[in-house]
Amino acid sequence: MKKIINEPGTVVAESLRGLAVAHADLLRVVDDPAQVLRVDAPVAGKVAVVSGGGSGHEPLHGGFVGPGMLDAACPGAVFTSPTPDQVHAAVTAVHGGAGVLLLVKNYTGDVLNFETAAELAAADGIDVRTVVIDDDVAVQDSTWTAGRRGVGGTVLLEKIVGAAAESGADLDTCERLARAVVADVRSMGMALSAPTVPHVGTPSFELAADEMEVGIGIHGEPGRARTPLLPADALVASLLDPILADLPFAEGDDVLLFTNSMGGTPLLELYLAHGIAEDVLAARGIEVKRRLVGPYVTSLEMQGMSLTLLRLSEEMLSYWDAPVHTAALRWGR
Amino acid sequence: MKKIINEPGTVVAESLRGLAVAHADLLRVVDDPAQVLRVDAPVAGKVAVVSGGGSGHEPLHGGFVGPGMLDAACPGAVFTSPTPDQVHAAVTAVHGGAGVLLLVKNYTGDVLNFETAAELAAADGIDVRTVVIDDDVAVQDSTWTAGRRGVGGTVLLEKIVGAAAESGADLDTCERLARAVVADVRSMGMALSAPTVPHVGTPSFELAADEMEVGIGIHGEPGRARTPLLPADALVASLLDPILADLPFAEGDDVLLFTNSMGGTPLLELYLAHGIAEDVLAARGIEVKRRLVGPYVTSLEMQGMSLTLLRLSEEMLSYWDAPVHTAALRWGR
Repeated sequence: MKKIINEPGTVVAESLRGLAVAHADLLRVVDDPAQVLRVDAPVAGKVAVVSGGGSGHEPLHGGFVGPGMLDAACPGAVFTSPTPDQVHAAVTAVHGGAGVLLLVKNYTGDVLNFETAAELAAADGIDVRTVVIDDDVAVQDSTWTAGRRGVGGTVLLEKIVGAAAESGADLDTCERLARAVVADVRSMGMALSAPTVPHVGTPSFELAADEMEVGIGIHGEPGRARTPLLPADALVASLLDPILADLPFAEGDDVLLFTNSMGGTPLLELYLAHGIAEDVLAARGIEVKRRLVGPYVTSLEMQGMSLTLLRLSEEMLSYWDAPVHTAALRWGR
Repeated sequence: MKKIINEPGTVVAESLRGLAVAHADLLRVVDDPAQVLRVDAPVAGKVAVVSGGGSGHEPLHGGFVGPGMLDAACPGAVFTSPTPDQVHAAVTAVHGGAGVLLLVKNYTGDVLNFETAAELAAADGIDVRTVVIDDDVAVQDSTWTAGRRGVGGTVLLEKIVGAAAESGADLDTCERLARAVVADVRSMGMALSAPTVPHVGTPSFELAADEMEVGIGIHGEPGRARTPLLPADALVASLLDPILADLPFAEGDDVLLFTNSMGGTPLLELYLAHGIAEDVLAARGIEVKRRLVGPYVTSLEMQGMSLTLLRLSEEMLSYWDAPVHTAALRWGR
């Protein structure tokens, strides 16, 4: 297994230690149970926004902790849900008196464990709401999911809702906005290669030299089809077509286009794909008002990409443009 | 060859088109010869800072075009120097009347072509200075270099000198500062896998399943040694020790530590390595005042990392902290 690690059992804890020392101005890491907390949390009177999930998708979620985005992230083991006590501890640590919003990717373990944590926090008297994101149009159910998976749209959700909370919006408003984002965001991904989970030591699946997996999940879960590797023009269309048809997106819509690397796909290829997606949308009369291009929701070193499209309201647009200061996303300050 | 491309011959041009549409607020791309220009260039009265080099190292250099960093980047074909006319065209386009500083990585083709461009621009009456960066301590000469290679330190050089130019520093000051950065920055990298150049179609070299290449260059050039894959603690030490010994860095030094992914190494591993490097430096009494962690000088999808250490003066520190707004680095605005 070719990885820069000491041993599989300590990868997440050692990585979090590096994150903490690299970004001590933004966040602090608490051990046992592991939590990444905004350095100035709890922020009195502000709705706290908390997310989390399995590790291996960095910068999601710890890289998005900071002013204008998340108050806390709960990192599980690689590709493994965080535990209820992890989430409960994070909620308790960042609750500033205005309630807590949990943003949860739709995987069975995550949904269950965040729900248990929410019950524990409610018993403490904290007003906790949960919004589940399930933006992946590729498959209805999958290995680790009842219903659709939560993927790239999570970054947009965390940014927009995080900005609302930062601006002083109350818990009802943050929850309503989160549900609006979930309703209007769609994603689909593909892979050229498999990730290797450290404690497994071998690639999660095998693809022939001329194959790709279309509709893959961020843990390498099977997608819609294993097909011959397509040229970029056709490949991008194969991701965008089902996204556009699903909502559906229509001529005249204003959108945010997020072109995401699964980790191992370099920016040279990612910007190439992004340009093609812009062309497809322009030809459909859909205006790309904002874009995000880069590796933000990854699957370790997996080569591949995903596209995410969010139909932007004026409210979402203003929160997208609001200042943010995190390890992975920053502007406006 | 597993890549998201249409055909090898159009990769760079298509990727630049995507870059341009994604970041139209920051930059514009001129074709034939290819140049990435700051959108508001030329900025009257400001020293223009220009760099460039082969493509395949993204976000270097086009991702660093914008206020507070580069005025222009000249992207060559993949792992191929830009041509003199490319650099000359860029210098002409961004010259704002206060002279132009060329920042050149030390590879034979780059040095030659930037030098020819500088002569052409000088003949036009433009005051052009050139500073060559050669921060890689791994090897003295290499496949494409007489002398040491220019690698990770390039990002720090472009940020610090770009900030000085933005603040109104004159050409003499920018040149002096650039030479000071080059004098005090050192890097070394390693790889776990090889990149595949699109027009070649096969990996640049082969490494056995239990091997790594220590001291590798950013084009996959051979390094110091092919060794068994080490645990992260020993691996980081094998990069840091020669860096520390070279300048040499000493107890009491203030430094910037840059932990760079070669492309295919995920953030989970990169932060882990960064934490180890911080420990090594702390144990030596060297204070890490600033850090940068991420994939900033890559070699396509190559797995691996590099470490860069810059001995920070107060002047460098203040320019490092100054606002920057580019596709790949942004803060303070």
